[in-house]
Amino acid sequence: MSSEKNYPKTGQRIPNGMLQDNYPRNMWWVAALSAEVTTKPIARWILETPVVLYRLENGNTAAMYDRCPHRWAPLSEGHVVGERIVCPYHGMQFDPAGTCVKAPTQEMTPKTAKIPAFETREAGAFVWIWMGDKEAIDCEPPDVGYQVDPQWTFMSGYYDVAVNWVLVRENVLDLTHIPFLHASTFKQNDWVTAPDTYMDGETICYEQEFDLAPLSPLFCAGMGLPEDKPIKRKQIGRMPTLAVSFSDWNVHDPAPEKGHRSDFVMRGCHIVTPSQRGRTHYYWGAAFDVPDLPADVVEKTRKSVIEAFDEDKHLLEKMQAQISNDPRGLDYLEVTLGADGGGIKVRQVLNKKLAQEGRSLT
Amino acid sequence: MSSEKNYPKTGQRIPNGMLQDNYPRNMWWVAALSAEVTTKPIARWILETPVVLYRLENGNTAAMYDRCPHRWAPLSEGHVVGERIVCPYHGMQFDPAGTCVKAPTQEMTPKTAKIPAFETREAGAFVWIWMGDKEAIDCEPPDVGYQVDPQWTFMSGYYDVAVNWVLVRENVLDLTHIPFLHASTFKQNDWVTAPDTYMDGETICYEQEFDLAPLSPLFCAGMGLPEDKPIKRKQIGRMPTLAVSFSDWNVHDPAPEKGHRSDFVMRGCHIVTPSQRGRTHYYWGAAFDVPDLPADVVEKTRKSVIEAFDEDKHLLEKMQAQISNDPRGLDYLEVTLGADGGGIKVRQVLNKKLAQEGRSLT
Amino acid sequence: MSSEKNYPKTGQRIPNGMLQDNYPRNMWWVAALSAEVTTKPIARWILETPVVLYRLENGNTAAMYDRCPHRWAPLSEGHVVGERIVCPYHGMQFDPAGTCVKAPTQEMTPKTAKIPAFETREAGAFVWIWMGDKEAIDCEPPDVGYQVDPQWTFMSGYYDVAVNWVLVRENVLDLTHIPFLHASTFKQNDWVTAPDTYMDGETICYEQEFDLAPLSPLFCAGMGLPEDKPIKRKQIGRMPTLAVSFSDWNVHDPAPEKGHRSDFVMRGCHIVTPSQRGRTHYYWGAAFDVPDLPADVVEKTRKSVIEAFDEDKHLLEKMQAQISNDPRGLDYLEVTLGADGGGIKVRQVLNKKLAQEGRSLT
Repeated sequence: MSSEKNYPKTGQRIPNGMLQDNYPRNMWWVAALSAEVTTKPIARWILETPVVLYRLENGNTAAMYDRCPHRWAPLSEGHVVGERIVCPYHGMQFDPAGTCVKAPTQEMTPKTAKIPAFETREAGAFVWIWMGDKEAIDCEPPDVGYQVDPQWTFMSGYYDVAVNWVLVRENVLDLTHIPFLHASTFKQNDWVTAPDTYMDGETICYEQEFDLAPLSPLFCAGMGLPEDKPIKRKQIGRMPTLAVSFSDWNVHDPAPEKGHRSDFVMRGCHIVTPSQRGRTHYYWGAAFDVPDLPADVVEKTRKSVIEAFDEDKHLLEKMQAQISNDPRGLDYLEVTLGADGGGIKVRQVLNKKLAQEGRSLT
Repeated sequence: MSSEKNYPKTGQRIPNGMLQDNYPRNMWWVAALSAEVTTKPIARWILETPVVLYRLENGNTAAMYDRCPHRWAPLSEGHVVGERIVCPYHGMQFDPAGTCVKAPTQEMTPKTAKIPAFETREAGAFVWIWMGDKEAIDCEPPDVGYQVDPQWTFMSGYYDVAVNWVLVRENVLDLTHIPFLHASTFKQNDWVTAPDTYMDGETICYEQEFDLAPLSPLFCAGMGLPEDKPIKRKQIGRMPTLAVSFSDWNVHDPAPEKGHRSDFVMRGCHIVTPSQRGRTHYYWGAAFDVPDLPADVVEKTRKSVIEAFDEDKHLLEKMQAQISNDPRGLDYLEVTLGADGGGIKVRQVLNKKLAQEGRSLT
Repeated sequence: MSSEKNYPKTGQRIPNGMLQDNYPRNMWWVAALSAEVTTKPIARWILETPVVLYRLENGNTAAMYDRCPHRWAPLSEGHVVGERIVCPYHGMQFDPAGTCVKAPTQEMTPKTAKIPAFETREAGAFVWIWMGDKEAIDCEPPDVGYQVDPQWTFMSGYYDVAVNWVLVRENVLDLTHIPFLHASTFKQNDWVTAPDTYMDGETICYEQEFDLAPLSPLFCAGMGLPEDKPIKRKQIGRMPTLAVSFSDWNVHDPAPEKGHRSDFVMRGCHIVTPSQRGRTHYYWGAAFDVPDLPADVVEKTRKSVIEAFDEDKHLLEKMQAQISNDPRGLDYLEVTLGADGGGIKVRQVLNKKLAQEGRSLT
């Protein structure tokens, strides 16, 4: 059939398509929510590596390869004593650097028993991890301090999505899908044209202003606005690293109720971490520049965001499954539209990062 | 072990065994029941290709590759407007020829955005599809007009079977399995010897006459016969194309009740379409040359046919799974019996078709 | 990351790691419990081969490749008549040597229709099978007569474990995992140091004596001992073949109740049979040298053993899954401890067996 010829390709390709390893290692990725990392160890696949995460009794976080070097039992099935993690199988103990400090079935502690350990940081609501060369660490995680700033109300959610991480990245950088995929949830149906996109240093940015129109009902409660009230919006997006992007909804109410504020920000954030092949950890955050929103407003907002993002998860997983199951795989036409400015820049930034690591993935 | 040697092979092999792609492309396959194709698009794997099927508002049917050429979203998740299908992700619209006729996020409609579309026909109770070269279309789907002829009562059913399509083809062309596999359902236990098989042009045929014996209870109700009444049967089978075969049960009642008919036909049909690797769409039909059989007779017949065909599905899937999971795969003795005349002819017809397409599969 | 270099390896490796075929063929493996093999045939994967097992009407057992040589239907879906197994599909009949003795759809019985048959033996509570060359049979299955000796009370259980069989073998030959993995079930927390291990001919042995301490509650009921009574233990292990090992708990009560015995044996046995890739049939047995233990004692003991062995199954399956899913697979440091004497000898015995079969697996 005609699909068996090679299709012409336009524009910048996703490195390795969406079926293979295509992530940089030398950067900060999110490993977990801070609240997930406790003295009870957890297992997590990060960049196709089994990682155990735990919190030392002194409050620091530790991360290492989730395999005991003795008989390869997952340490995440063990427990933490002080700063040490104890293997569930034969009780070997390791410090946060991965060094064996006790082998209880014998007197001698084997010096060769050393587990690869990973650098971690806490920033905002998250624990971040550096899976590449430690010597290459040249920055700290992006600034997400607003997530824990009491002047903001921050809420978040998590999806384990069965898609390559780039599909999520492109999804959140081209919001012209909102009036189509989310027509009945977001209801922000004026977002039908593409924003301006540009680079600010290494940060991908987009900007777009909208005329008077009702705000998406997802965010009305957080700003105390009636759902049908026309407001002005300036949408500003930023992707400082491949791991995280922000979507600011700057809202101006030209006719505020007496004594009410006229300007609000809802800062969305989209955090992705490659996990196993074809799977991605996806954390979303939504923050209002309003302190201490009541629990019922938070709950209502969370629920409505999840309802909308379920639509993305459903469609993206269908896309990935279709492509994975199609024997033709990536051999299919791909046409780029004007609205793909953000997504194309993602591919360019990614290619540059991979080249820096000496990996040019086709 | 001894199975690790190469086994001697006898007779004509199934091309590519039952584990690989082994279907012709240049022929009409059944895509769906006509009733399944509506203005709500459906996704279907056909010849290992993701296909979207929908009905235009004017009643015609359309089929195309189920991937938008923009970001590869499945169009089957979208909706139909007039003759167009609308992508669920960013709202791009395509006509039934697969041509993009609108990209709502921009003014210009991208000319390169063209989806492979497939020819469809409606014949009998089914929508048929040609997945190969359109230029090679040299025939119409087989004549199955009786399925919608008011002089007949037609009923059908569907199985998604986890087997290569040839296993189903061979199953329905060697009915000497009826007294063994279906001893307690069909109860047509006189069918223990092989029929004559021959070619009529490109049609595989078999014929066999049976002496007085009770008819299988599956078909008594449809003919208004008591289950223990001895009748004469002439069994005639035809496979005009690899996609469909017919099994006519010509029944002669030598002592009809007063005023009753003495001759009846039950025309079985077996339609197979390769779907994903190792999976097959299997539609069966059963038609009596009796108009307007009452609903309870139809329901009773359907139920009893399904009970019998469940036995085939169970056994064939066990066969396929065993062979797929056995590391020796196809390296096993295969002995041909006299009753395999129909099945062997299937393999010969298939090889000829594949050779015509320039594919000789080993 | 650093794990992408090759890790240094210490000691004897598991042939083919735990991800590939790594079992000898020329030896007796357990096919089933005797009680499982009846005139109703059963299907079982043994050494990655589909096997059908059945009992002849004369009481003997038969085993053959579970594929009819006609159209490859699994014979295990058929039934037994006398000494013959009947194919479910077209009724072909085979004797226990795998020879076709009837093809009911034709007069001539095809001489080439011969199924590979396997030698079987019954010993103890089990049916044993020889999957390799019959000419290489040079021994009988290991002596497990105590399992059916009325002076003993024998109980057993079965797990289908998703791990390579060597992981189970090593697990049961290094019991220093008891105080860690089974701290809250076995509660035999004095077993923290390694036993002496040595070879007695081809049998791997270990021996270890323990000072006064309470016996594991798993075995107290079987010996009629209170759970907190200090006793002396001599632990003796033997692995006569890769298929089976024994673990004798020799218990001496220095202060028996008046009229009570002071010495008991609990003989554990661990039987493994490779099934499909990465899967193992694991039968455990526990026998007390006490006749006719009451049903409630047997049931209590069984339950508590299962609770402990569930912990092994859980951890071993996590190990296997982690290693299978990690793209680095076997490329990871493996450090050997003093307690690995038994496990290392398993690897040595296995390598020797494989070399005898002309297979040196890396």
